[in-house]
Amino acid sequence: MSYDVLAQGEREETMHLPTNPKAVLIDLAGVLHTGDDALPGAVAALEKLRASGLALRFLTNTTRTPGSVLHTKLCGMGFTLAAAEIQTAALAARTLVRERGLRPHWMVHPNIAEEMGASDPDPDVVVLGDMGEHFTYAGLNHAFRLLMQRVPLIAMARNRYFMEADGMSMDMGAFVAGLEYSTGVTAEITGKPAPAFFAAALAELGVAPDATVLIGDDLTDDVGGAQDAGIAGILVRTGKFRPGDDENPDIRPALVVDDFAVAVDALLG
Amino acid sequence: MSYDVLAQGEREETMHLPTNPKAVLIDLAGVLHTGDDALPGAVAALEKLRASGLALRFLTNTTRTPGSVLHTKLCGMGFTLAAAEIQTAALAARTLVRERGLRPHWMVHPNIAEEMGASDPDPDVVVLGDMGEHFTYAGLNHAFRLLMQRVPLIAMARNRYFMEADGMSMDMGAFVAGLEYSTGVTAEITGKPAPAFFAAALAELGVAPDATVLIGDDLTDDVGGAQDAGIAGILVRTGKFRPGDDENPDIRPALVVDDFAVAVDALLG
Repeated sequence: MSYDVLAQGEREETMHLPTNPKAVLIDLAGVLHTGDDALPGAVAALEKLRASGLALRFLTNTTRTPGSVLHTKLCGMGFTLAAAEIQTAALAARTLVRERGLRPHWMVHPNIAEEMGASDPDPDVVVLGDMGEHFTYAGLNHAFRLLMQRVPLIAMARNRYFMEADGMSMDMGAFVAGLEYSTGVTAEITGKPAPAFFAAALAELGVAPDATVLIGDDLTDDVGGAQDAGIAGILVRTGKFRPGDDENPDIRPALVVDDFAVAVDALLG
Repeated sequence: MSYDVLAQGEREETMHLPTNPKAVLIDLAGVLHTGDDALPGAVAALEKLRASGLALRFLTNTTRTPGSVLHTKLCGMGFTLAAAEIQTAALAARTLVRERGLRPHWMVHPNIAEEMGASDPDPDVVVLGDMGEHFTYAGLNHAFRLLMQRVPLIAMARNRYFMEADGMSMDMGAFVAGLEYSTGVTAEITGKPAPAFFAAALAELGVAPDATVLIGDDLTDDVGGAQDAGIAGILVRTGKFRPGDDENPDIRPALVVDDFAVAVDALLG
């Protein structure tokens, strides 16, 4: 199938998996693990995928934890992966801020504050990450006032929710939507579903979208984002998956399977 | 002019002030006062309006303060008004919850918690007010989880921002929008711009919409809401008014004036 004939915003009825895939983009939370626990069969499935020789990248919108800690955590669960294979929305934001020479006001979780660097006392951009329990009215109101003075907003993600060990939790998208509503600005997103985030992974791997597959548990930000970038998406029924996600009229995954292990088997055919 | 011929959502190009008004609905913050200070000329203008014999109601979406405290505060600034003349979005929410026999989970500022009453341990509705500094991720996530279990959301207001003594501040509408975004639910609003909130004031005063005028500083929630209910709105250039509010193509106030005193003079002709 051909992707380049699609106008922006247009989607084919259903995308198809490439017959000869060269790379796989893998979401982390809800696909390989929930909280501190590997999902059943995920460790062995990743081994199998590696043995196949396909190029791999791990794409995460989690911005409460630095990539290095995430890497250590995943290794501790038994997964085999290199820190450099993990592409985070937080590092994408840092790269974007540096490339544009911006003076950021960082609103991020204390865990990644050092990785992002110091905030500028005279900021020309607000950069929002998932602060979790550290979101405060005072902090949000400070951002609100900057945005009302026409300082633009970059957000690492706009995910609606994610699966934690004790249940579904509200994700940072709620705060992005709230600031957008009150100020009238529209945030620029650095993580999924931003096309640039997927493009960066493809460029590093040197593969074309139509030779790549994404595996994720988020219909909108994983599968929808990937398919908008011309990458076929496999939706897994783990993590934040909810009944009905596989019947959405607007986003039709190339494949919907029970979990990561089944996705890998389907890919390796 | 005739209002009842308008279909819902439709607005006339510009509404006109009634030639023989019988009642005035007055917003508080940003119209009569900012923070703890009366706005210049507002105290004398209210005296003048009272002397004219027009029926008055004070309509506020402020839900960080009980009506009784608001009343004491306004009296302290020199305004003459009775506590019973103040209609608050918080009391409208309490009335609605009682009338429907609901079991509320109250998310409100500690200042009004006693006035609202105890939360039910097995809630069938989340009722959100402006918690100000008391908004926390944990509290919002608790509400998020209830909404995801199909518990509906009532919000006292969805205002975008309000004027404080030290500048414009983010209002509770940001949190309403955030919860709506993450859960996919739509909140029912009890304060302005809900038609029922204006209707309750008119019913108590026994006046028709086309004999009533609203004076407010919020283009959307005061003027837009009032005009949707068939009440001509006067927008004042104090409080949260921002340049451009008087040129909005969608909401055209019957009149735009510098402040409350000028509005009163215009009304009394």
